[in-house]
Amino acid sequence: MSYILISNDDGIDAPGLKAMVDCLPHDRRIVVVAPDGPRSAQSSAITVINRLHIRRHDDYHGAEIYSVDGTPVDCVKLAVNIFGRPDFVFGGINHGPNDGNSVIYSGTMGIVIEGCLLGIPSVGFSHISHSWETDFLPYYATVKRIADDVILNGLPDGVCLNVNMPEGGEVKGALTLRAAKGYWVEEFDEYDTGDGGKEYKLTGRFLNLEPDNDATDKYWLARGYASIVPVRTDVTAEDAIPLLSQRFDSK
Amino acid sequence: MSYILISNDDGIDAPGLKAMVDCLPHDRRIVVVAPDGPRSAQSSAITVINRLHIRRHDDYHGAEIYSVDGTPVDCVKLAVNIFGRPDFVFGGINHGPNDGNSVIYSGTMGIVIEGCLLGIPSVGFSHISHSWETDFLPYYATVKRIADDVILNGLPDGVCLNVNMPEGGEVKGALTLRAAKGYWVEEFDEYDTGDGGKEYKLTGRFLNLEPDNDATDKYWLARGYASIVPVRTDVTAEDAIPLLSQRFDSK
Repeated sequence: MSYILISNDDGIDAPGLKAMVDCLPHDRRIVVVAPDGPRSAQSSAITVINRLHIRRHDDYHGAEIYSVDGTPVDCVKLAVNIFGRPDFVFGGINHGPNDGNSVIYSGTMGIVIEGCLLGIPSVGFSHISHSWETDFLPYYATVKRIADDVILNGLPDGVCLNVNMPEGGEVKGALTLRAAKGYWVEEFDEYDTGDGGKEYKLTGRFLNLEPDNDATDKYWLARGYASIVPVRTDVTAEDAIPLLSQRFDSK
Repeated sequence: MSYILISNDDGIDAPGLKAMVDCLPHDRRIVVVAPDGPRSAQSSAITVINRLHIRRHDDYHGAEIYSVDGTPVDCVKLAVNIFGRPDFVFGGINHGPNDGNSVIYSGTMGIVIEGCLLGIPSVGFSHISHSWETDFLPYYATVKRIADDVILNGLPDGVCLNVNMPEGGEVKGALTLRAAKGYWVEEFDEYDTGDGGKEYKLTGRFLNLEPDNDATDKYWLARGYASIVPVRTDVTAEDAIPLLSQRFDSK
C-alpha cells in the first residue's frame, strides 16, 4: 500500500517530527518510523549485531507512529521491510543545522540518503537552531512548497535534497545551492576524571573556508533564506579515475 | 610531530589492524587509535552526548596503540585533538567487503572520509571476507604498493581511496574503478520474542544492478583483482543545481 515515510534522528518525542507530519498532504497514508530516543550525528550507521524492536504509538493527526530501538537508517530499512517500499521519504524537521559538511554526519541525511539509494524521492529538512522550543509554524509554507513539489515531480535519479531553514522565524525565500566547504576545529572539551585520567566531550565549530561565497548554503542561511542542497548518493569521484589509473593500475 | 594515523571499525583486537601496521613504512611514527570493540557499519557516526576515554596499550612492531570507547570517526577526531594533525590516515585492513554502496555504511570509510575532510591523504583497505582467520600476508604487496604511492605522491584534493582486496589469497592485479550501482534487499530475519512480539536482525544481500559492467569494483573483485575506488567527500550534486533552481528558488 502506497505511503509516505517520515523519520528523524532526534527521536520519537521531538517536536520537529510532528511539524514534519503537519507539513505533508493528509490525503495520503503517512507512516512515521523514528528512533525511540535521540540519535543525532549517527550518519548512515546501521545496527548489525543486535536485534531491533518496533513499537506502535498513538496516531498523530492521522499519521501512524512507530518507534524503533535503532539508528535512523535502521528505521528506514525496517519500515521498508514491514510496510513495503514507500513512495517518498522525508527526514526531520531536524533540530539543528545540517548545512556545510554536516551532511556527512547527519542522521537526518542518513535517512534521506537511504531513501535515495532505493530510488525513492527523499528530502531532509533541518532548522538551524537546536532548540526544542522552536516555533516551526513560520517555516510550514516553505517546507510544504518543497514537499508538494517533490511529491508531484519527483527528483533526478540518485539525487536527494538537504533543506535547511534559517533562524528567526522568517523565511525570505529559498535557494538551490551547494554545501559550503570547510571542516570542524577545536573539537573537544577536556575533563579530569578525578583519578588522574581524562575524558573528552565532542564540541567544536565549523570553519567555513568560503564565508563570502554566495553560491553556498551557509551564506544564504545567515541572511534569512532557506537553503536547498542537492546531494548525490554515488560518491565515486569519476573524474579522478583516469589520473589514478595511471598511478595504481596493474593487470 | 609528524605521524601516520591508523584506525579501523573492527576494533583494537582485529588481526587486520596489525596487518595494516605491518604494511606501512616503519621509518615513520605510526599511531593506532581504534575503537575498543567492534564498530562495524558505523558510517561517519560521532558521539555527541557521552564523553570519550582513550587508553594506551602495548606497542606493536614500533607502532603506538590506543583504544577509544567511541566510533571510528571519534577515534580520528580524538587523535587529531591529542596528537595533532596526522600526515596520512589509513583505515583497516577491514574484515569484510566495502565495495558497491557499502562505502555509505562503512566505518572504515568513515575514518578515511574524516581524514579527507581535513585535507589529509587517506586510504581505506578492506578484504572481501569477514573471517578473522584471513591470512593477510598474500595482500601485503598490494597494500604496500598503494600506501607507499600515496605517502610519496598524495591524493587529489577532496578525494580519498576505497581499496578492496579479493578473496582467495592471490591478487592478480589492481584497477581503479567506480563503485557498482545497486542496493540492499531482503534485509531482515524475523524472530518471535516468545511473548507475542517480534524482533528483527539485519541481514540481506546487495543487488548489483550492473553485474557485467567491467568499469565497476564488484566485477573485478570477483575475478581476483584488487579494486581502487576514488571517493569524493563533497556530495553536492552540482550538475542538478540549475534544473532544481528553476523549480524551487524564490527570492
